[in-house]
Amino acid sequence: MLSNFYIKEHVKSALQEDIGFGDITTENLTDGSEYLKAELNTRNDGILCGCEVFKTVFEILSSDVKIKFYFKDGDKIQKGDKIADLEGPAKYLLMGERVALNYIQRMSGIATETRKYQEAVKPYNAKVVDTRKTTPNFRSFEKYSVKIGGGALHRFNLSDCAMIKDNHIRLAGSITNAVQKLREAISFTHKIEVECDTFEQVKEAVEVGADIIMLDNMTTETMKEAVEYINHRAIVEASGNVNLNTVNSIASTGVDIISSSAIVAKAPTLDLALDM
Amino acid sequence: MLSNFYIKEHVKSALQEDIGFGDITTENLTDGSEYLKAELNTRNDGILCGCEVFKTVFEILSSDVKIKFYFKDGDKIQKGDKIADLEGPAKYLLMGERVALNYIQRMSGIATETRKYQEAVKPYNAKVVDTRKTTPNFRSFEKYSVKIGGGALHRFNLSDCAMIKDNHIRLAGSITNAVQKLREAISFTHKIEVECDTFEQVKEAVEVGADIIMLDNMTTETMKEAVEYINHRAIVEASGNVNLNTVNSIASTGVDIISSSAIVAKAPTLDLALDM
Amino acid sequence: MLSNFYIKEHVKSALQEDIGFGDITTENLTDGSEYLKAELNTRNDGILCGCEVFKTVFEILSSDVKIKFYFKDGDKIQKGDKIADLEGPAKYLLMGERVALNYIQRMSGIATETRKYQEAVKPYNAKVVDTRKTTPNFRSFEKYSVKIGGGALHRFNLSDCAMIKDNHIRLAGSITNAVQKLREAISFTHKIEVECDTFEQVKEAVEVGADIIMLDNMTTETMKEAVEYINHRAIVEASGNVNLNTVNSIASTGVDIISSSAIVAKAPTLDLALDM
Amino acid sequence: MLSNFYIKEHVKSALQEDIGFGDITTENLTDGSEYLKAELNTRNDGILCGCEVFKTVFEILSSDVKIKFYFKDGDKIQKGDKIADLEGPAKYLLMGERVALNYIQRMSGIATETRKYQEAVKPYNAKVVDTRKTTPNFRSFEKYSVKIGGGALHRFNLSDCAMIKDNHIRLAGSITNAVQKLREAISFTHKIEVECDTFEQVKEAVEVGADIIMLDNMTTETMKEAVEYINHRAIVEASGNVNLNTVNSIASTGVDIISSSAIVAKAPTLDLALDM
Amino acid sequence: MLSNFYIKEHVKSALQEDIGFGDITTENLTDGSEYLKAELNTRNDGILCGCEVFKTVFEILSSDVKIKFYFKDGDKIQKGDKIADLEGPAKYLLMGERVALNYIQRMSGIATETRKYQEAVKPYNAKVVDTRKTTPNFRSFEKYSVKIGGGALHRFNLSDCAMIKDNHIRLAGSITNAVQKLREAISFTHKIEVECDTFEQVKEAVEVGADIIMLDNMTTETMKEAVEYINHRAIVEASGNVNLNTVNSIASTGVDIISSSAIVAKAPTLDLALDM
Amino acid sequence: MLSNFYIKEHVKSALQEDIGFGDITTENLTDGSEYLKAELNTRNDGILCGCEVFKTVFEILSSDVKIKFYFKDGDKIQKGDKIADLEGPAKYLLMGERVALNYIQRMSGIATETRKYQEAVKPYNAKVVDTRKTTPNFRSFEKYSVKIGGGALHRFNLSDCAMIKDNHIRLAGSITNAVQKLREAISFTHKIEVECDTFEQVKEAVEVGADIIMLDNMTTETMKEAVEYINHRAIVEASGNVNLNTVNSIASTGVDIISSSAIVAKAPTLDLALDM
Repeated sequence: MLSNFYIKEHVKSALQEDIGFGDITTENLTDGSEYLKAELNTRNDGILCGCEVFKTVFEILSSDVKIKFYFKDGDKIQKGDKIADLEGPAKYLLMGERVALNYIQRMSGIATETRKYQEAVKPYNAKVVDTRKTTPNFRSFEKYSVKIGGGALHRFNLSDCAMIKDNHIRLAGSITNAVQKLREAISFTHKIEVECDTFEQVKEAVEVGADIIMLDNMTTETMKEAVEYINHRAIVEASGNVNLNTVNSIASTGVDIISSSAIVAKAPTLDLALDM
Repeated sequence: MLSNFYIKEHVKSALQEDIGFGDITTENLTDGSEYLKAELNTRNDGILCGCEVFKTVFEILSSDVKIKFYFKDGDKIQKGDKIADLEGPAKYLLMGERVALNYIQRMSGIATETRKYQEAVKPYNAKVVDTRKTTPNFRSFEKYSVKIGGGALHRFNLSDCAMIKDNHIRLAGSITNAVQKLREAISFTHKIEVECDTFEQVKEAVEVGADIIMLDNMTTETMKEAVEYINHRAIVEASGNVNLNTVNSIASTGVDIISSSAIVAKAPTLDLALDM
Repeated sequence: MLSNFYIKEHVKSALQEDIGFGDITTENLTDGSEYLKAELNTRNDGILCGCEVFKTVFEILSSDVKIKFYFKDGDKIQKGDKIADLEGPAKYLLMGERVALNYIQRMSGIATETRKYQEAVKPYNAKVVDTRKTTPNFRSFEKYSVKIGGGALHRFNLSDCAMIKDNHIRLAGSITNAVQKLREAISFTHKIEVECDTFEQVKEAVEVGADIIMLDNMTTETMKEAVEYINHRAIVEASGNVNLNTVNSIASTGVDIISSSAIVAKAPTLDLALDM
Repeated sequence: MLSNFYIKEHVKSALQEDIGFGDITTENLTDGSEYLKAELNTRNDGILCGCEVFKTVFEILSSDVKIKFYFKDGDKIQKGDKIADLEGPAKYLLMGERVALNYIQRMSGIATETRKYQEAVKPYNAKVVDTRKTTPNFRSFEKYSVKIGGGALHRFNLSDCAMIKDNHIRLAGSITNAVQKLREAISFTHKIEVECDTFEQVKEAVEVGADIIMLDNMTTETMKEAVEYINHRAIVEASGNVNLNTVNSIASTGVDIISSSAIVAKAPTLDLALDM
Repeated sequence: MLSNFYIKEHVKSALQEDIGFGDITTENLTDGSEYLKAELNTRNDGILCGCEVFKTVFEILSSDVKIKFYFKDGDKIQKGDKIADLEGPAKYLLMGERVALNYIQRMSGIATETRKYQEAVKPYNAKVVDTRKTTPNFRSFEKYSVKIGGGALHRFNLSDCAMIKDNHIRLAGSITNAVQKLREAISFTHKIEVECDTFEQVKEAVEVGADIIMLDNMTTETMKEAVEYINHRAIVEASGNVNLNTVNSIASTGVDIISSSAIVAKAPTLDLALDM
Repeated sequence: MLSNFYIKEHVKSALQEDIGFGDITTENLTDGSEYLKAELNTRNDGILCGCEVFKTVFEILSSDVKIKFYFKDGDKIQKGDKIADLEGPAKYLLMGERVALNYIQRMSGIATETRKYQEAVKPYNAKVVDTRKTTPNFRSFEKYSVKIGGGALHRFNLSDCAMIKDNHIRLAGSITNAVQKLREAISFTHKIEVECDTFEQVKEAVEVGADIIMLDNMTTETMKEAVEYINHRAIVEASGNVNLNTVNSIASTGVDIISSSAIVAKAPTLDLALDM
């Protein structure tokens, strides 16, 4: 999902952003001949995510930095765990530190938050998924982190799945019209989802054969009814008012999917640090 | 701080990320001839930030979208306020909605969080500032939001201010050596900051003429002592363990600057929505 | 599908490729003050495609070139038809001519070829679709042209639909394993297609609930059998040995989709010319 | 002609186009630990072209893919020939397959078509050359393929050779004026070609010392006369109505150069396939 | 030669370089509502060059800056002349000033220096031309300035004219071999130049039909002899030891072309200033 | 200051500029199998600068070129010194030669000129610094060269130090207002410089606590007075009319910094050559 060439371009740009026209402190205090050892440690419990990206930061700066990871993406890590050993020129360890941490802290934070949601829905079958409420130009990293955290994924963008919302319904005249028009127009490889605010809309969407039905901001009672009515004729997604307190009760309605922007947008960064 | 050409390139890339090879729903339900009116409303109280960026999203998509803002960056907005009126082809309003909101929600969220911190330090003179713990390739937007929120700014990156940390001290042998070496090496237009863990370090940094002294993870007592000792011979920054509960007491020590990564990294997005 | 900002970047790069460090002929024979009128005419029958791209070429060069189209994308045009009137500085008409034609000739060629295939499958319901055998970095333009020509579209790339081929089956152990593993792993918004070489494979794919089944290089008899067996439990795609002679007989088997790389890779350019 | 850094940037972009946010099939069925062997075989006779580009695709994806070619660019290959052995992680072989083939099939197709034209002009001295009717942003690859196919090359773009066409003549008043004005204005390192529709124009162009004279859409009789008249005072290019049936008879007129857009624009792709 | 889209990309990048994350002085002292008038004046005599580029700088920053030029590229300007009037928001005039001047000062400097050389060769026919000794990524601006200054141009880069130097001769075995091999290999639209150190080499190059012969570091006597020997069978270029003192005497030998890196690399910037 | 990834992107673009669609001479005379040895020699005395950039040019072209430097950036080199040995495929040595020299000649030229100025201020303490009058998109290379030459550096761009000029004073009403407004608005990590034309302005700037005071175009007498008045309360920069004849006398006034655009804009290239 994160191609190595995509990562490289993103990291190069982030290094440019953080280094600007040079690390005036480090470059003037070491000529690159001093070597350092460092440990990547975690100060919190969580799910590790972003090892490849972390490594790429230092690879771009210098081929002399050696990194050995003791955990891998998706592993549970606990406060005090040593995540990795680093060794290399002080110059590049110090120059890359902040950017490398900025990626891995955010990514691990999202993975950790996602895992909490995913565990909160037990013992139900529902999967927690992300949304398109992501940080501009950082979505691939965020979606990857959701997956590593054990979440499932919603569509990547506007082009890989059709999603009929209230304004689309208005443009088409009805859910039925919208679905039929889209089925004709879009690729047969793509699915159609309909966002429903009422039970009536759910019925219409099921009848016209929508692949996915989103129950938007419904009570758990209505959701339960809807799930029963749909009866596996479509995938059912619940959306709206999802948080760690509500997610289990939403899952209990039998929905397949629970989408939450919070697992990305409100995930605190995980406190990983480089101790040299 | 956010040049229009910088915004444009960033937004074009974000639109590419979200639109991919087309909005398969919208493009197939409207040919661009239907017009819509929409309102940008806020569902929370907060500080508005990102109006220019929001507008740029739609300008790139079409010159036919008209936007009129009733508030401007830095204004307090309250739940229920209408922030802006939009009018234009349904096609482009629907295609740009998510990306435009992704910017303005994040930016307003950071401005709002910063304002809370800034208000929490009253009646002291301390200014709350950001750090380099930002989202890769999104720093300019985050720093701009901090400023709009009433915060002050720390250095932009590694090149506009020297910051001597423990590893730099080790490389140079002592704080004194590090400061003297840097003063010789860096531009006379740049300042030198020293990160101090102990009172002894503070003394050494003051004697050698550091421009800024960071008190790292010190108790409020030690900070108070340090501030007195420094006695305006350097700007004093407090760092470490800063949150809404601690920030006033930190400010009470007389420090000039309190740096916090939380105002960016932990700011929840502000809930702005487009009602069509 | 072709966002205006995507078109612009592509065209700017193509103009750079064709103009290099200047049109040494034109720039030295006119200073931009001479105006020309020109007609875009077609020397062949076909389906017009690429009007927006054609216009963008001249818009990038100068805001003084005026273009009025008498047909639009998807229209049938006949040898001798005047497609558009152009008027503007000779300098920019001559500099942009070749690039503008290179786009519109290729795009109209593909639309025209696609239309032939689509008409050849009458009176059956099958839709002709493209493949991923496209020109590197030109796929969006090619897929758009297929759609304008009346074809339907296959997946855009490797990320918007899963397609299990023989090597994937080997990696997973069986079709059943592969489908089940993918259903768990990929987004619920994405479909799963299985490429089947034999009737046995078709059965396995249907049982495990594949969304789409590709009949690869089968005889029309086997295809007919497969279609009957599948009986609308999955979308059926025929692939292999598709050309204008075979496509109708393939359609007669009842398949839903016929994929052909020829409509893109072997479409001759349509002979449109600028007469000044 | 194809610098390695130019190839790399083009291929990275093509991989981004085809892989998008990940190969959802392959990435979820192998973690990169399974290895595969594959053969690049040809299903048609032709001229091989694009080996370096093919290799670059896999090099960008992974340093673990090993490729050994048994033929090189320009070699004749015959149906059934094994062109190369590949070995490496299944993950990267499957992810790169389509893009690698898209380049080598197109490039070999053009080389093959060019060779046909070049052989068709025997026993005359004429060289077949390409034109500027190329695929936008793919010209370097197409021109390279023409050269590998045994063709010669026309100018690369508008900046490396002046070409006076009818509109330029009108702008300058006459061929004589145009040539004289250009000789004064352009670099002494560049040649001047004049496109002539009539024998009169040929005479004028020769007298004023054009370096190259294009005989545009003339009968073979007129071409013969023109060649005799010119008598090596300029290079003679024939253009218009060039195809495999006419090219030998055009060559027989004694022209030096025969330009054809067909060798690029109408070349069918060569059917090379990866058998794993 | 300088396409508007090429200029725009170059200037955007230069503005990014100079503005960084904002003009902290100007942005904090004006909100964009104050307007300024400014004059572009020259403090030296010279040849004006770069008006379009100068304008583009301000166009990118704001559509509210109005500029009226009283001279155009190639005009002689004298100390004290008002070159242009500017009016617009103080914010953008101050932000763009330095970059705009950096372009126009360098470009006018080169045009001015070129004019001096060109005038120094009177009354001979020789043209002064530039070389490839240019500033990396600034060549187009430098070559344009040479042309505006009245100079002629050498090849743009390694691809638009063949130039056989001593190492190429060694690789090919002899001048004769090199020319013959290249004539076969390169495009018929490109010329071949041979760099000759001795009279013997000149003879060989003429016999084998080189288009251009460079007399490298020869005495004026040898040059005269060579010119006579060549007798218009090739264009003759003199190179080496060219400066304002020697250029007239070199021109007196009858050579057609005198190439000088000094007109670009050693041209002092012309002192143009913005008086507000 | 010059990050390796920044150098790489700049050099790739410069190679693209110089190589275009191929080195038609070299590529057609060698297939890459012939090897050459070459020496980088200097034909002038000076300060070497640009070794890493020089190497990067060849590294991008081929991993087979081996380079061994006998001097390093900042070393004094004398006419006739061998700077480096190169060995590798003739193809890549010849293709990269010009670009590699274009960087190292310019960079060494600036370092050499800077050294002259820096030596001319002896025995005073003043440091010679550069300005923002640089070549667009080449500033990092120029500033690096100034530093290597022994100069100090002024601000990098508009964002790392505030500089109040006459127009800013007018916008703010007075120097006092401007400094106070900026101190409130800009980052505490940034300094404030005030450009003063008169002694009165110097006084006002000192009183309001400017960090740096620029004495603009003052006589040496006034400068001396100003230095005495300021008495180390601010860093003092002299600007205007700085050249090799005046710089010592300016330094004698006791100023800390002397800024000169000439060390970059008027530095002749240093004559380094590749002898093969």
